[in-house]
Amino acid sequence: VPISKTPLKSADSPESPEKRDERKLRTRAHLIQGALTLIGQGRGFTSLSLREITREAGVVPAAFYRHFRDLDELGLALVEEGGMTLRRLLREVRRDRIAPKAMLETSVELYLRYVKSQRLVFAFIAGERGGGAPVIRNAIRLEELHFASEMAYDLSAMRTLPDLSIGTLKMLCGLMVATMLNAASEILDLPENQPRREAELIQNFVRQLRLIFLGATLWRE
Amino acid sequence: VPISKTPLKSADSPESPEKRDERKLRTRAHLIQGALTLIGQGRGFTSLSLREITREAGVVPAAFYRHFRDLDELGLALVEEGGMTLRRLLREVRRDRIAPKAMLETSVELYLRYVKSQRLVFAFIAGERGGGAPVIRNAIRLEELHFASEMAYDLSAMRTLPDLSIGTLKMLCGLMVATMLNAASEILDLPENQPRREAELIQNFVRQLRLIFLGATLWRE
Repeated sequence: VPISKTPLKSADSPESPEKRDERKLRTRAHLIQGALTLIGQGRGFTSLSLREITREAGVVPAAFYRHFRDLDELGLALVEEGGMTLRRLLREVRRDRIAPKAMLETSVELYLRYVKSQRLVFAFIAGERGGGAPVIRNAIRLEELHFASEMAYDLSAMRTLPDLSIGTLKMLCGLMVATMLNAASEILDLPENQPRREAELIQNFVRQLRLIFLGATLWRE
Repeated sequence: VPISKTPLKSADSPESPEKRDERKLRTRAHLIQGALTLIGQGRGFTSLSLREITREAGVVPAAFYRHFRDLDELGLALVEEGGMTLRRLLREVRRDRIAPKAMLETSVELYLRYVKSQRLVFAFIAGERGGGAPVIRNAIRLEELHFASEMAYDLSAMRTLPDLSIGTLKMLCGLMVATMLNAASEILDLPENQPRREAELIQNFVRQLRLIFLGATLWRE
């Protein structure tokens, strides 16, 4: 066991490989969470320094490099986290087997609850998909494409819009995903206790999705 | 003439007030351009320091405070610049008096040419509308709302969708503006000399706008 790899830890109590792996994963999660916390405070990812992130995570700066080569690699881990969060949402929608008639309202409700419970991850995705580091932005776009593509195959399997090709369904879902992330960013920015403003934003969001869906029913290949 | 306000300038050649105002405006424009240049290099606005911006603008750091109280105030000036750029686009579309049938393709062409000629301003808007500093983000959203609202009144005047209320037209235009800015960010990120990839992105963008428009023709209040 090469204990020498962790020079900043006192080596007097020998640790089992399992425990070390566990601790390593925990530190990695703390670094990810630390970066997300700073982003949740309104900071862009490109403005974060390694030192701030390790301080927020409660580890020494040198520990960073045992988990990530550089800040970009941490950024890509955040994007992965975001992608997993989005895919979990699709699984929840599938599991709930919503009646087609209430599809839109119920999905929006589920989505907004989800955005609020995962607000830091959504703040990161919504924040970096347009700006900041190109490498992060491109990775987020790829995750969005995967998500839209999965959604398109779900719609295809449900035969919700049976006349549309899978290519058109992907274009449609891409538009819906962009609209969803746009709404997430607006809703997360609302000050607390603004129920009327929130209701307006949600109503606007539902109307935009309905408009997109209406267009899809008229679409001819 | 209170020359003492500009302590870093040698006061041996007296300057006329007009010349001084002109120079002041020029420095301000250099600071704005300097920040945009750095953002165009893939930097988030919140990651910029005052020193970098003044270096890029070719002025001493202290000169910054003769134009902006702090970095946020410079950010808001950039937002204003973005808002003016968007409104200029609407004026161009109006002046061209495009035939309704070719409306979509021609507007998209005009828009994309415009995005490319003003790429730094669009990189800033697309980059900061989702992330970074909340004060900047909210200002961008307000500019988007103004733009969407102007577009809605234009559509209303042209009687393109005569059955829709102004409220619905605003919701529709809000969705179109978000889709436009999304497309701008994707197109600006394309590497040079990727005509096929660019054509695909543009086709996807046109199809999304067409879908939105189709939905609008079916919409019942």
